[in-house]
Amino acid sequence: MEILKVIKIGGNLINNPTLLATFIKHFASIEGPKILVHGGGSLATEMAIKMKMDVKMAEGRRVTDKQTLDVITMVYGGKINKKLVAALQSNACNAIGFSGADGNAIVSVKRPIKHIDYGFVGDVVNVNTELLGLLIKHNVTPVFSALTHDGNGQLLNTNADTVAAELAIAFAKTFQTELYYCFEKKGVLLDVTDENSVIEKINQKKYDAFVENRVIADGMLPKLDNCFYAVHQKVQKVCIGNTDMLYNQHAKFTKIQAT
Amino acid sequence: MEILKVIKIGGNLINNPTLLATFIKHFASIEGPKILVHGGGSLATEMAIKMKMDVKMAEGRRVTDKQTLDVITMVYGGKINKKLVAALQSNACNAIGFSGADGNAIVSVKRPIKHIDYGFVGDVVNVNTELLGLLIKHNVTPVFSALTHDGNGQLLNTNADTVAAELAIAFAKTFQTELYYCFEKKGVLLDVTDENSVIEKINQKKYDAFVENRVIADGMLPKLDNCFYAVHQKVQKVCIGNTDMLYNQHAKFTKIQAT
Repeated sequence: MEILKVIKIGGNLINNPTLLATFIKHFASIEGPKILVHGGGSLATEMAIKMKMDVKMAEGRRVTDKQTLDVITMVYGGKINKKLVAALQSNACNAIGFSGADGNAIVSVKRPIKHIDYGFVGDVVNVNTELLGLLIKHNVTPVFSALTHDGNGQLLNTNADTVAAELAIAFAKTFQTELYYCFEKKGVLLDVTDENSVIEKINQKKYDAFVENRVIADGMLPKLDNCFYAVHQKVQKVCIGNTDMLYNQHAKFTKIQAT
Repeated sequence: MEILKVIKIGGNLINNPTLLATFIKHFASIEGPKILVHGGGSLATEMAIKMKMDVKMAEGRRVTDKQTLDVITMVYGGKINKKLVAALQSNACNAIGFSGADGNAIVSVKRPIKHIDYGFVGDVVNVNTELLGLLIKHNVTPVFSALTHDGNGQLLNTNADTVAAELAIAFAKTFQTELYYCFEKKGVLLDVTDENSVIEKINQKKYDAFVENRVIADGMLPKLDNCFYAVHQKVQKVCIGNTDMLYNQHAKFTKIQAT
């Protein structure tokens, strides 16, 4: 089976034009089928501040109200997505920007209200790979913002790590899929203050122990939960680290393993 | 040859949720290949006001500076485009949102500075129909915002009427293309105060005379220039009127004819 790389980038790249330009150049040169998934960095927050919007919180979590969803749609689905696509095109990578609504690619349901009402947040229920697969076959690189839709006309905000995982899982049936989470660190660190303490391989058992001992905590938990979810759903290779892992064969990074 | 309909909608629909919902329903039900092109209505201006941006003018024309281009990219390429796509999907129309950068669909050059510097405004130099044609063949409906790119990573603002004309012209080689400009009036009016004074057919000679006599003036001029440009470039059918012309066979509208 052919390899398909799903690469997710986040705020550290989006917010830094120099790093982003370097990444775009390298990403464009990666051979074979690939999909880019991007978060939004701090731009959506900056925009919300400019527009003097209130940030609604519920039990310490941000709520996606109608106005916030609009900002996300504009910033992630518009500004960042179109700029990435234009930049990739200038590097001879035939990109097409996608939200989950485009081509009905990612269908989600609005998260049910239990204790917290998260607002317009969508949990993925289906990824339609047919049209995306056709485009990939024609050498097109889909570029996904973290937006999905419910099929009834409502766009929904979905975590970019989750979007990347769901795409990789859906394509695992037709491709040998590899999922790369790029962030500012070299990988999962044994000691957060030591950038060189990269844990090179981690499986579910080791992960559970690290969580238990609080070696891994906070923001790394949802990230790694997505990694293990993908690995358990037959994604061939799941890695987390900085962008060096994509193009430097000597780079250290963390590889997530099922067992 | 199969018929391809290129339909352009503007501010009167974008700004009116009820009218827009009705249009979307009807548009989705139009059989056969179709492309939707949308303007931005007053939303970009509203956003610019919210963000307390200055509107730059040069000789009475709006200048697209960097900040304005960002707002256009967010509002046209993000908010409006994604909402239209989600709405079409909910009406069983498999839409994909496009800017000219996506799939390298529409390449433009930044308008050269002569007397006026229009800023980030692009004049179309090439439309790539191959990928769009493939999608259309697979029953996909491209939805275009009025953004193009220069191939060097720069997005450019291009008039939505022009985008629609250029798409129709480019596809005239492989389809029998029909171009519909939807706006708030029933068509070109002989008397602007009488909605029923629709000129049902207009050719270049008649148009020139109307312009000479100032029967047709102001905002209608660039609109009709686009119409005649398309007609002279072998677009099979060019019409201007309100959305009724798309689905009511008794509707009055203006048909543009080469001779």
